[in-house]
Amino acid sequence: MRALYASGMRLGTLRDGTRDGKLVVVASSGDRAVSAASVAPTLQFALDTWERARPGLEELAARLATDPAFGEPLDAAELLAPLPRAYEWVDGSAYPNHVRLVRRARGAEPPADLLTNPLVYQGGSSVLLAPTAPLVLPDAAWGLDFEAEVAVILGDVKEGTRASEAESAVRLVLIANDVTYRELVPAELAKGFGFFQAKPATAFSPFAVTPDELGNAWHDGRVFMRLRSTLNGEVLGDVETGPEMHFSFFDLVGHIAKTRAFAPGTILGSGTVSNAARERGVSCLVERRALETIERGAPATAYLKSGDRLRIELFDESGRSPCGAIEQVVTNATL
Amino acid sequence: MRALYASGMRLGTLRDGTRDGKLVVVASSGDRAVSAASVAPTLQFALDTWERARPGLEELAARLATDPAFGEPLDAAELLAPLPRAYEWVDGSAYPNHVRLVRRARGAEPPADLLTNPLVYQGGSSVLLAPTAPLVLPDAAWGLDFEAEVAVILGDVKEGTRASEAESAVRLVLIANDVTYRELVPAELAKGFGFFQAKPATAFSPFAVTPDELGNAWHDGRVFMRLRSTLNGEVLGDVETGPEMHFSFFDLVGHIAKTRAFAPGTILGSGTVSNAARERGVSCLVERRALETIERGAPATAYLKSGDRLRIELFDESGRSPCGAIEQVVTNATL
Repeated sequence: MRALYASGMRLGTLRDGTRDGKLVVVASSGDRAVSAASVAPTLQFALDTWERARPGLEELAARLATDPAFGEPLDAAELLAPLPRAYEWVDGSAYPNHVRLVRRARGAEPPADLLTNPLVYQGGSSVLLAPTAPLVLPDAAWGLDFEAEVAVILGDVKEGTRASEAESAVRLVLIANDVTYRELVPAELAKGFGFFQAKPATAFSPFAVTPDELGNAWHDGRVFMRLRSTLNGEVLGDVETGPEMHFSFFDLVGHIAKTRAFAPGTILGSGTVSNAARERGVSCLVERRALETIERGAPATAYLKSGDRLRIELFDESGRSPCGAIEQVVTNATL
Repeated sequence: MRALYASGMRLGTLRDGTRDGKLVVVASSGDRAVSAASVAPTLQFALDTWERARPGLEELAARLATDPAFGEPLDAAELLAPLPRAYEWVDGSAYPNHVRLVRRARGAEPPADLLTNPLVYQGGSSVLLAPTAPLVLPDAAWGLDFEAEVAVILGDVKEGTRASEAESAVRLVLIANDVTYRELVPAELAKGFGFFQAKPATAFSPFAVTPDELGNAWHDGRVFMRLRSTLNGEVLGDVETGPEMHFSFFDLVGHIAKTRAFAPGTILGSGTVSNAARERGVSCLVERRALETIERGAPATAYLKSGDRLRIELFDESGRSPCGAIEQVVTNATL
């Protein structure tokens, strides 16, 4: 039997003044890392040359695991998104409970084929936010909300790839905050072309990890872990990411590849993680507002405001946090 | 007065086995080019470092213009899209005549704010097609159509950039074939999240040119030229790109930057170029089908089929074609 965390690795991207940052391999403690420059200067380069790059990265990971003196201390504030810019960011909506609640909240019906036809949207990807980047809110009336999600980074995907062929395309797992301006959503969707202005830049976790770094928590194209979202210290949600992910990442790959191919570095999101059991809480504020509306006739929870501190983190059974935490503060200052 | 074509340049990307190809500066004849490796190995690199790269590229362009022995013969079949992968592909719909006709064809109303609120959608950008790439049609029932467009490639765009500040962000002009599976559009739009599966990979012209390469044909954030679309030798459309572009590229930049920033290499499309004067013809088949439906009650023109040869080219008053031609053949063979 394969040992947990035996051959997995964590990758991160350090700020170095360039647009793509500098790739590092990170120890499982999360506080020590070594430059991957000898193998791949950037994560995009590693993904572009994965078969060649992977053994060298694994060697660095193995040395970090066995030699506590190897590498340098890692400052979380210096980490960018694993891919500070990506060639695609495609976000699914794989948790039916989220779709049902959000649609109910805006008085819309869920699609009739909700359980057979995945919903996905194409997001912007030339500017992706660091895990500690401030959430700048130019206008409080836009209704700033977070969406805590699991995501994968893909290798090459040929057009026509089926779900049954998708496993080998999944390179890395990470978490995302798919930021949304809720009050801009209705007008954008009414135009018929998607969310455009309602979706500012998305933030990602400090680390992107190989699926085997998750051990038994990765199977069937899903991550079986707990995603905890905390606002100003209050736990808003502590949800199961596995059981209610109706469409797996493999299903989502099969869906998006129907009519085109994808190059390495495509980030594919799960959509907001959502559990039917209300005691699990929520992974975005609009769900809580929807529940309040259902229970009391009106929402009581406000959207995010300047000064709010948000934290999103993915934990396994033993309390490990392989992807690290997204920690963002809302500000209305222009940066 | 500034001389036409005095300081402009044409850039192209040659196939070299890498994912990004190799940047070349192209003579105004279009049949001779010189490697830009001494300045920038790829177009993305040139865009990332534009202020530093531009003088060196201009020097190569000037030498090509004055020394007929400088450079190498250019084989159009070896050209990839100027950006074979891009960090964003955002497509507008700036010609109201197109929106009105297409909506009428599918029995939908144009948006009430069509003339004040630009329509844009986020397209896939990790795989962009060469100007001579075959259009692979896996299923004839999907209704393959072309859309001939003008597009620009942007430099850095800050969040909140206004239309009045957008001119300096426009780096290059090119043309696009925004391929669409018409029969997949209604079901995708009904899901509410955009065109996703209805938009396979987009193709681009061989050359991307600096706005000053267009001389007086570039002003007010618009290209004032003629865009000719030919199918199997028949001219389908020969439309004016300038006067009916209701939203300029500057307006579109101001629109998309409302809630986020864009990194260099973002490609921004005009949407299908469309003129109200019917004798100008069309830049996509669905418009022709819409006109046939209006005039005779039913469409007579079929969508593209295997073996069809498509050509899209942008001409100035003197018959020059600065961006070169998109020339694609439809095939139902899997490549």
